Amino acid sequence: MSTVLPGFHAIVPAGGAGTRLWPLSRQARPKFLLDLTGSGRTLLQQTWDRLLPLTGASGITVVTGAAHADAVTEQLPELAAQNLLAEPTPRDSAAAICLAAAVIAQRTPDAVIGSFAADHVIRNEEGFRAAVAEAVAAAQLGEIVTLGIEPDHPSTAFGYIKVGEGLELAGAPSACRVERFEEKPDADTAAAYVHEGGYRWNAGMFVARTDVLLAELQRNRPELHAGVQAIAAAWDTPERDEVLAARWPELEKVAIDYAIAEPAAEAGRVAVVPAALGWDDIGDWASLAALLPGDAALKVVGDAAQVLDVDSSGIAVPAADRLVAVLGLKDVVVIDTPSAVLVTTREWAQDVKKVVETLSELGRHDLR
Amino acid sequence: MSTVLPGFHAIVPAGGAGTRLWPLSRQARPKFLLDLTGSGRTLLQQTWDRLLPLTGASGITVVTGAAHADAVTEQLPELAAQNLLAEPTPRDSAAAICLAAAVIAQRTPDAVIGSFAADHVIRNEEGFRAAVAEAVAAAQLGEIVTLGIEPDHPSTAFGYIKVGEGLELAGAPSACRVERFEEKPDADTAAAYVHEGGYRWNAGMFVARTDVLLAELQRNRPELHAGVQAIAAAWDTPERDEVLAARWPELEKVAIDYAIAEPAAEAGRVAVVPAALGWDDIGDWASLAALLPGDAALKVVGDAAQVLDVDSSGIAVPAADRLVAVLGLKDVVVIDTPSAVLVTTREWAQDVKKVVETLSELGRHDLR
Repeated sequence: MSTVLPGFHAIVPAGGAGTRLWPLSRQARPKFLLDLTGSGRTLLQQTWDRLLPLTGASGITVVTGAAHADAVTEQLPELAAQNLLAEPTPRDSAAAICLAAAVIAQRTPDAVIGSFAADHVIRNEEGFRAAVAEAVAAAQLGEIVTLGIEPDHPSTAFGYIKVGEGLELAGAPSACRVERFEEKPDADTAAAYVHEGGYRWNAGMFVARTDVLLAELQRNRPELHAGVQAIAAAWDTPERDEVLAARWPELEKVAIDYAIAEPAAEAGRVAVVPAALGWDDIGDWASLAALLPGDAALKVVGDAAQVLDVDSSGIAVPAADRLVAVLGLKDVVVIDTPSAVLVTTREWAQDVKKVVETLSELGRHDLR
Repeated sequence: MSTVLPGFHAIVPAGGAGTRLWPLSRQARPKFLLDLTGSGRTLLQQTWDRLLPLTGASGITVVTGAAHADAVTEQLPELAAQNLLAEPTPRDSAAAICLAAAVIAQRTPDAVIGSFAADHVIRNEEGFRAAVAEAVAAAQLGEIVTLGIEPDHPSTAFGYIKVGEGLELAGAPSACRVERFEEKPDADTAAAYVHEGGYRWNAGMFVARTDVLLAELQRNRPELHAGVQAIAAAWDTPERDEVLAARWPELEKVAIDYAIAEPAAEAGRVAVVPAALGWDDIGDWASLAALLPGDAALKVVGDAAQVLDVDSSGIAVPAADRLVAVLGLKDVVVIDTPSAVLVTTREWAQDVKKVVETLSELGRHDLR
């Protein structure tokens, strides 16, 4: 059981190409629009379902590319029209999240926002709700808060958070100071982090009061802040399109980690709520294979009757009305779609983006 | 250059499921109806093209299952209607070839027939024509003649011929006596054959006068001979269907090797014409990969623009209008069709028939 957190508003940046999940993930239908886990709900819908108990339907804002606005509306029929912010072009996460925060701040002064990517998986929903509740409590006290994911292996695919002293905040007993953020490490460094302890994965989930977040942006990126505020001021007026057209293209493209989280952490203004969430960003087919439930050596997403497997392991995703037969291959990745089939191995999963790059070079834009 | 061999008539048994070449080869469209080498001609058509200079169009008879008669007619528009023999059900090669020989004998007394499977590849056409010319000369002298293929590796997939003394026949200077036929050997035995020399692959190509062939059948399988002769006698009469319906189902199912070649060889009545033909029976995807020309690590049958390959080797067959992307797999086999895609390795190529067997067990007859 869980109750809505008063004053809390979720921002869901729904972007990213997901090229490592080609050929299922395409420019026109990226990862967050897909049901990658075979649950019957897309990753975007799962994100909605997870946030809804904490915010209510009116407390979720989705920021996405104009090209995907219709698909988002279709997948989230309860999303309020005013809570769908369509970006004319991608300007990276600082612009997207801070614009949403600024628009929310105008509509709901004193709101606490939390930013949660549309294409991640969280299996421990109860742990998630508890951690967000603590993060919101800490944010109400003026902290910029991040959720720190308990590492279950020395991953080189994620950034890390060095956890400092406990803050003993009211309503947020687990919150600690963030000493610093660490970039994605090499394997030895990752192993040392996990061995040493006191490190958490940075899943890019940030919670803060809108005024605190925007003040931090103003401190570190004053021009970006001015642009975002100008657009937000016009958002609910007839001037929106005009101001958006004038200001959006000149906004700095920068990740929120660099514009806000890292400088704020250096200044001792970031807190972390440690959490065991069963979290994964499904970065590639290998990570999807690892997180799918079941004992089958060859994991299947979709209709298992359309996969015929003899002495194989890995992951197979059949297309509708086509059989995938896999014979004698270990750690294989077979992803079938109506227009393309990918065959590779878990080991090569990160290199799937090379295929998409090659398709671009070949001018096969129909297949990207 | 080559001229028609007088009195020579080719029989082309067009049968066999080719289940190791699934999913391209299907019950409804087996191997001989496919352009497996990407030449623009199917294996049946290539067989026709190869025989035509030796026989002329009226000198080729095709024996096939009733289900494939229309497809054969479509692929061979020059085939005379009376030279297409449709079997009501499969009764193995002795019945098929001997019925054709008996029908030909009625129409053309003193004909020499040669039997050549519809689904083999022969790259040295000149060598083939020279060897057949010798075989026909030897057959006219009363020999049952087989072509003995020079082994280029110790294959365990083929039977072998132990070559005996030279026969010094007029018009057939290379013809030798066959000492015996050997079944498909194990790897050690095959290696010994190749090391020792004096062994040839048995490609199942037989040449004989019709009267000699049918006398040998009568000697070894008198009931089969009687049935075949009864059907042949009715073939060009209004009673064909009635006699076929009465006699065909009771014909013994036996390979021509057991009904004729082996007993005749034991009696010293089989000759072999050694030949280097660049022959292959394309038994599975691995053997097709090996015989395709070119230096590419990943061989492609079909539209190479529909295969995107990064650090891979093996064989890929794309379906029309679908991309096959292969990333980081060695010795891989990827065969795409509109209704099924197969992913396996060269090493597992012989086991592809297991997939077809499993499909049968699952009742997926649409995919066999």
